[in-house]
Amino acid sequence: MADTLRIALAGLGTVGAGVIRLLAENGTLIAQRAGRPIEITAVSARDRAKDRGVDISGFGWEDDMTALSARDDVDVVVELVGGSDGPALALARTTLGSGKGLVTANKAMVAHHGLELAQLAEANDAAMRYEAAVAGGIPAIKGLGEGAAANRIERIYGILNGTCNYILSEMESTGRDFGDVLGEAQALGYAEADPTFDIEGVDAAHKLSLLAALAFGTRLDFGAVATTGISRIRAADIAQARALGYVIRLIGLADCEKDNGERHLFQRVAPYLVPTNHPLAGVSGPTNAVVAEGNFSGRLLFEGAGAGDGPTASAVVADLIDIARGNVPPPFSLPVSALEASAPADPGHRRNRAYLRFLVADRPGVLAEITAAMRDAGVSIESMIQQGHPDDDDNPVLVAIVTHEGPEGAVDRALTMLEGSESLADKPLVMRLLG
Amino acid sequence: MADTLRIALAGLGTVGAGVIRLLAENGTLIAQRAGRPIEITAVSARDRAKDRGVDISGFGWEDDMTALSARDDVDVVVELVGGSDGPALALARTTLGSGKGLVTANKAMVAHHGLELAQLAEANDAAMRYEAAVAGGIPAIKGLGEGAAANRIERIYGILNGTCNYILSEMESTGRDFGDVLGEAQALGYAEADPTFDIEGVDAAHKLSLLAALAFGTRLDFGAVATTGISRIRAADIAQARALGYVIRLIGLADCEKDNGERHLFQRVAPYLVPTNHPLAGVSGPTNAVVAEGNFSGRLLFEGAGAGDGPTASAVVADLIDIARGNVPPPFSLPVSALEASAPADPGHRRNRAYLRFLVADRPGVLAEITAAMRDAGVSIESMIQQGHPDDDDNPVLVAIVTHEGPEGAVDRALTMLEGSESLADKPLVMRLLG
Repeated sequence: MADTLRIALAGLGTVGAGVIRLLAENGTLIAQRAGRPIEITAVSARDRAKDRGVDISGFGWEDDMTALSARDDVDVVVELVGGSDGPALALARTTLGSGKGLVTANKAMVAHHGLELAQLAEANDAAMRYEAAVAGGIPAIKGLGEGAAANRIERIYGILNGTCNYILSEMESTGRDFGDVLGEAQALGYAEADPTFDIEGVDAAHKLSLLAALAFGTRLDFGAVATTGISRIRAADIAQARALGYVIRLIGLADCEKDNGERHLFQRVAPYLVPTNHPLAGVSGPTNAVVAEGNFSGRLLFEGAGAGDGPTASAVVADLIDIARGNVPPPFSLPVSALEASAPADPGHRRNRAYLRFLVADRPGVLAEITAAMRDAGVSIESMIQQGHPDDDDNPVLVAIVTHEGPEGAVDRALTMLEGSESLADKPLVMRLLG
Repeated sequence: MADTLRIALAGLGTVGAGVIRLLAENGTLIAQRAGRPIEITAVSARDRAKDRGVDISGFGWEDDMTALSARDDVDVVVELVGGSDGPALALARTTLGSGKGLVTANKAMVAHHGLELAQLAEANDAAMRYEAAVAGGIPAIKGLGEGAAANRIERIYGILNGTCNYILSEMESTGRDFGDVLGEAQALGYAEADPTFDIEGVDAAHKLSLLAALAFGTRLDFGAVATTGISRIRAADIAQARALGYVIRLIGLADCEKDNGERHLFQRVAPYLVPTNHPLAGVSGPTNAVVAEGNFSGRLLFEGAGAGDGPTASAVVADLIDIARGNVPPPFSLPVSALEASAPADPGHRRNRAYLRFLVADRPGVLAEITAAMRDAGVSIESMIQQGHPDDDDNPVLVAIVTHEGPEGAVDRALTMLEGSESLADKPLVMRLLG
């Protein structure tokens, strides 16, 4: 059997401890599959003495994690520290700069600095892999970058944030409201104390930007992801959607068109209405799923646990096995120089059906005002439901509209016309229907 | 850019023509992703002149396909001829024997001769890949052998035959009977003129045996797959299943236990009752899906088109891109010498709930006879439905029983007791509930 692949672990949180447990428990099998043993030689974390439920006494220790990349007994550094910049980025740079392999679960860092890191990896003939950064234990990066590599990818979309999916499917099954379920998710550990990155869609946007670069061969452009979270969704929206044959899911979706030689990349994270017979509608709880539509493969779907120490460790170690086997494709499937620049696509021309929810004052003329704006903007209404509060004149009334298919720009124009109207008790909520 | 990877195609049916079209249409992108061009240099088929909708005039031609493996201008042979033995096997042997790479979509050949071929590949340092042999365009072999490589796989199961799944989901949505829908499937090209291999589960068994070897590190044992097809399922079974909250799917399922140092491999293809909230219940039409349960990843699901020229060509070319990139893991993830022998597991101890359907004479005492046999065999009945034919004394009556969880052997014993009973108008049908 060939030489041991020697690993340094930076960050010993739940995922780091999971990697240690996994390599201990499945080590013999992994050595057989990888063709060589994979062993941890050194680790670094904030507190050496902390009880993590795993024994780290056999590993070398560095107080300064950057020192891991300088050690002679390390071939690959696994970065599990997190954060788009700071120590994680410094470690990634020195690791690749010294020709060592980098395996990371850090979606924020790759979303912000992936191109620079991929270039460093290329220049130093070093491996860079990040399967665990997208969709937890699901081999989505491998499925897209290798399994679907023969295809021009036409569209990629999926459920990329387990916290949001847990909250939405709980709201769905219990009828409770957002804040209520969020509190419970925090108590259960499915949501962070500060849940902003998750519930406002930023985490999903990080992941989407990686998938888009990989799928379309475009330069990473996290800044161009149009991002809307789920915090404005009410139990009433979910009930309306259900009555129409839909569930609500936070979807990250990207496609890419070439127009006059210029690439237009569309990247959006937003709640969508998903038809109940669509495979993503059945994805509930903290599960993730990624769909890739290839021009020969057709629709491919990858589904599994979106987070957790076991699944994430599984993805990290899959990357290590690939490196041990010598399977090191370019991080974004193409050499960095071949990744094309793109302009953000104008969503105004996209044709969709849309769900619009208004909270309105309960008085005559309100519906006329809304429908007139729709007509003037060229939006064709398919159905409209008004949900009144009998015996309650003080509370606003909910009006839910589903439009026929039409350009998104028309819906935007209608909403602009209604801006500042005294009939509206709240900013309207718009969600597209997944087609 | 590095040297061209030169391909010979044996077999120019719909998949062969699909590979030609794919390489032509996506060739530039594929060369970028693979790091080198992938080009067909020679082809072979029965009839050179046949119109296949693709131009083969630029490729070398061999009347004898085995000659492809002897050509100096060929690095990899793609075998799309089919058949477990005969010319396909001869070609595979000479290809690997001469150190050339082999890519095949031939599940029957790999199921019967995979170990010999993997050994040949090892001995000659040649690549052998067969992604297209299992589940069409879905990267299931890659997902299992690489994506889930860090895991001990605890169970693998899935919908592996598109023809059966089409028939079952059509029966489900239309209420029609098996023979009726089979005829339609044949007319639509979803089923062969001789559909035996598909509807009796042999095709799914081929695929399951490959997945099992890959998942558990056991030696291929196609002969040990217990195989039951779908031809005895009636519209009434599907209706009963639905009333109970289940759909019927032909499932291939395998797991592997170690007992006193001996490996016991369980491999079964059979119709199962699948709970409607299980992801496989939503898989309808000719779609395939593979589920792998890893000890760290948890449940991973891969879903997509199970057949068709585009998806199958996508899988073939993904293998070629892997070979071009130098990603050539052992065909069954482990060196052949490390694959363990296994004994077929005794299913009698497996604990399951079961659906039993009897066609019985409509006369007093029949139910007592059946329930007495169940009691004597130790089978606990959860529910029983008798579907009579009022005003029709000549036709048998359907009795559907669902058992509580218990050992399969007990159900078998009950059925043995009832064998030859004059109360039964037909052999009972047993289907397990997917747990």
